[in-house]
Amino acid sequence: MSAPPGHPRFDAIAVVGVGLIGGSIAAAVRQRGLARRVIGVGRNLQRLEAARQAGILDEVAGDFGQVQSADLVVVCTPVDRIAEVVREAAQLGPQTLITDAGSVKACIIDALAGTLPAGVNFVGAHPMAGSEKTGWEHARADLFVRRLCVLTPGEAAPEDAVAATEQFWQSLGMRTQRMSPADHDRAVAASSHVPHVAAAALVSLIDESNAALVSTGFGDVTRIAAGDPGLWLAILQGNRAAVLAELDRLIDQLTAYRQALEADEAQTLLQMLEAARERRIGLER
Amino acid sequence: MSAPPGHPRFDAIAVVGVGLIGGSIAAAVRQRGLARRVIGVGRNLQRLEAARQAGILDEVAGDFGQVQSADLVVVCTPVDRIAEVVREAAQLGPQTLITDAGSVKACIIDALAGTLPAGVNFVGAHPMAGSEKTGWEHARADLFVRRLCVLTPGEAAPEDAVAATEQFWQSLGMRTQRMSPADHDRAVAASSHVPHVAAAALVSLIDESNAALVSTGFGDVTRIAAGDPGLWLAILQGNRAAVLAELDRLIDQLTAYRQALEADEAQTLLQMLEAARERRIGLER
Repeated sequence: MSAPPGHPRFDAIAVVGVGLIGGSIAAAVRQRGLARRVIGVGRNLQRLEAARQAGILDEVAGDFGQVQSADLVVVCTPVDRIAEVVREAAQLGPQTLITDAGSVKACIIDALAGTLPAGVNFVGAHPMAGSEKTGWEHARADLFVRRLCVLTPGEAAPEDAVAATEQFWQSLGMRTQRMSPADHDRAVAASSHVPHVAAAALVSLIDESNAALVSTGFGDVTRIAAGDPGLWLAILQGNRAAVLAELDRLIDQLTAYRQALEADEAQTLLQMLEAARERRIGLER
Repeated sequence: MSAPPGHPRFDAIAVVGVGLIGGSIAAAVRQRGLARRVIGVGRNLQRLEAARQAGILDEVAGDFGQVQSADLVVVCTPVDRIAEVVREAAQLGPQTLITDAGSVKACIIDALAGTLPAGVNFVGAHPMAGSEKTGWEHARADLFVRRLCVLTPGEAAPEDAVAATEQFWQSLGMRTQRMSPADHDRAVAASSHVPHVAAAALVSLIDESNAALVSTGFGDVTRIAAGDPGLWLAILQGNRAAVLAELDRLIDQLTAYRQALEADEAQTLLQMLEAARERRIGLER
């Protein structure tokens, strides 16, 4: 996959699902000259054509039947459609490398197990960048710079395909790290999926009697609750077991705070708050 | 309390507890020329003297015995010390107006009921501004501009004292709103105190196995968990009943998400996420 300096590494990259993430990938690929052509693939040709006219894409296609060739396909659809789209992309023939940008990994690997033709490689990825905003209109070529991309190759993927996928995400400015799909899913259940549910649950405490007293702190805590409900439903369903386990841990913790406060166990409460503060500050390092 | 333009409205304002909030009040009073003298009162004279040298205070005092006079006292100590400090400030004699900046109100009003000498008026306030940072080094004269200050006068406070207190907070750039202490406490339990506990509980889900996957979203959700544990302990204890009630509501909500996810009730989950998103977006308006 190495290319002489000044020459694009890829002939054509197809991005499926040109929203915030897919649009930002397309914009970064064009800005960095990583491919001769960036093809946007999606159901809504009108939206795709608008993204092309905005300079994010070179070509648009309604499905893979309209794509002549692509040496790399990046699947940026909602997580519940990724496995299906990967199978469609496999029609492009052997030597097609396929990666994705889904927030859950094991359910996709499981759904694909044994279904891809020989020579077609899928290397799952989770570029950890984004926002509560949606749509290619919010796309930014620098969205991924210095952010982490987790790769979850699974056991079937050959090393050269994994390395090429790693290089692709690195060429967008990302750091990469390999993890097993299960380890990834457990980690993001705690660091992302359950925090989203908690933010949504906290928002439901607000009504007309207290909305005026909502502070910037509350705004920060609950900002992610403005994310797309359909996307988040698919994420929670795709990572059900790990989300349930981390939700239980969160409910246990809140119950511990509740009991210590009700029993006026000041020392216990103080220790819990101090431990949380130290851990939170540690995350900034 | 009205003064001719160009003349300070107050002769002397004493600020007790010169941390982030008290320091910002002192800085704002000086910058806006609201008093001839700003006196910092506190236990740590070395810290106060440093604040004076930094230009935040005119004078420093270890206790009210060292304060000759003050027509307004603003108590900015941790909430569990406010009632005691208000009683000490009452030594300054009748015509002293006392307000505070505590995040809980009913427990202070209750502790003071019937204990203040005639002519000394306490009008509780909660200026809703701040940060997870502490210390006067982070003080900002514009911290309160366009923010809400809730006044919880209680029934004993005469209208002219309430109006004068309102004017003071407005003169720092704040909007003011009157509420009963109980209504205030219920509202901030939902909008501030329980979100703090939730942030602290979420942080405890993070360990070495998943710390690398912590995103900016998680950072936003949990930023407030870096706040001072001692201050927060006093707040939770001072607002115990309302915090317990809102914690129960949060745990109920999380349990509802848990059950809907476990039972794969997609439509229920989607409706919950959609309701949360709409409410969250509504808060931005």
